[in-house]
Amino acid sequence: MNSPNKRKTATEPVSELTTNRLSVYLRSLNQLEAAGVETISSQALAEQFHLNAAQIRKDLAYFGEFGVRGVGYYVKDLKRHLRQILGLDRKLRVAVMGAGNLGLALADYPGFKREGFEIVSMFDVADTKIGDESKSGVPIHDLKELKKIARKEHIDIAVIAVPAESAQHVLDQVVAAGIKAILNFSPGALKVPPGVKMKGVDLTVSLESLSFYLAQGIDDEG
Amino acid sequence: MNSPNKRKTATEPVSELTTNRLSVYLRSLNQLEAAGVETISSQALAEQFHLNAAQIRKDLAYFGEFGVRGVGYYVKDLKRHLRQILGLDRKLRVAVMGAGNLGLALADYPGFKREGFEIVSMFDVADTKIGDESKSGVPIHDLKELKKIARKEHIDIAVIAVPAESAQHVLDQVVAAGIKAILNFSPGALKVPPGVKMKGVDLTVSLESLSFYLAQGIDDEG
Repeated sequence: MNSPNKRKTATEPVSELTTNRLSVYLRSLNQLEAAGVETISSQALAEQFHLNAAQIRKDLAYFGEFGVRGVGYYVKDLKRHLRQILGLDRKLRVAVMGAGNLGLALADYPGFKREGFEIVSMFDVADTKIGDESKSGVPIHDLKELKKIARKEHIDIAVIAVPAESAQHVLDQVVAAGIKAILNFSPGALKVPPGVKMKGVDLTVSLESLSFYLAQGIDDEG
Repeated sequence: MNSPNKRKTATEPVSELTTNRLSVYLRSLNQLEAAGVETISSQALAEQFHLNAAQIRKDLAYFGEFGVRGVGYYVKDLKRHLRQILGLDRKLRVAVMGAGNLGLALADYPGFKREGFEIVSMFDVADTKIGDESKSGVPIHDLKELKKIARKEHIDIAVIAVPAESAQHVLDQVVAAGIKAILNFSPGALKVPPGVKMKGVDLTVSLESLSFYLAQGIDDEG
């Protein structure tokens, strides 16, 4: 809690939709910064990235006053603030559970490192995989070693990338190893105890958004 | 355009954040239906899935009047309407570009089929992969065959799962093959011509949401 933005977070929980939006804003600001843009209004930000200007102002006001009258937002400053709010001002250490196609793809996903997530280990139960490593060099350990390695490697987040039928078992081991944040790619309902935060990733959501555009006829944007 | 919900869509484009929310509502309704729930109010829906009740009402009102006074929403009916709005009332045929770890994981991702997306083919340039197939039996074709197979197989959507350095080249081939909707997992900026809809998937967004909870201290929910 060393962020300067604790104004309201203690009283009112922030929804996942809000944090997802903050991530989207951060991604947009990254693009603006790369393009050399120094300041931007909520209106221009909204128009350029097909967002909602009133929503942007509301979301950002919730965490403090970042806008400057007559200027809008300073891209670099707002980016730094968003990274702080999202807890990205420090490295987070991630373990991937399951060294199948999905696990290996996630271990080598180039976006994670760029944003401060370090994939430090993978875990599997197959003898043929244990001792091997991903293309980018993430080592694959025996699931039995999870507790020991989680402590030694200071794992903050576990990513569940195992088949549905083993997901709950693996999740239970993750929880037993003291890991408090879980990203779940496995379909189906999993149970986590209080004090552990799990977020599910459903890749169908993105396809459904495209489906919507196909259904409407693609005419409004490129 | 055979949906009954064309009230406003012709005049005002619907943002990606809206279609993403509709997908989230649909996912929530799937869970409610599986649990035997027949009706639900926007308030209860919001509380149960950590959503915003006013936003739910606003989003749904945009496409028509689905709520019933004193009852809320009929789960089955609303689900059917949302599937119609999202264009999921028909099968969509998907090709995966790139048969690496990510491509193979996506080809076998169990959620797609359940929601009406049929992964019909994969494409790659490596001789060692062409002619092979994914675990679930999706055939891997030569990228050179894309145009011919896209026509024969009626591909609606292409998923880009190739390394960043080949992404634009592959995307250009997808566009040349007449495919109008693209889901891009490759990082970096890609160009699509007008009339083609591309949606980028950034897997870091989900990790950032967890990072936020770790930064705040996990105390508000399980």
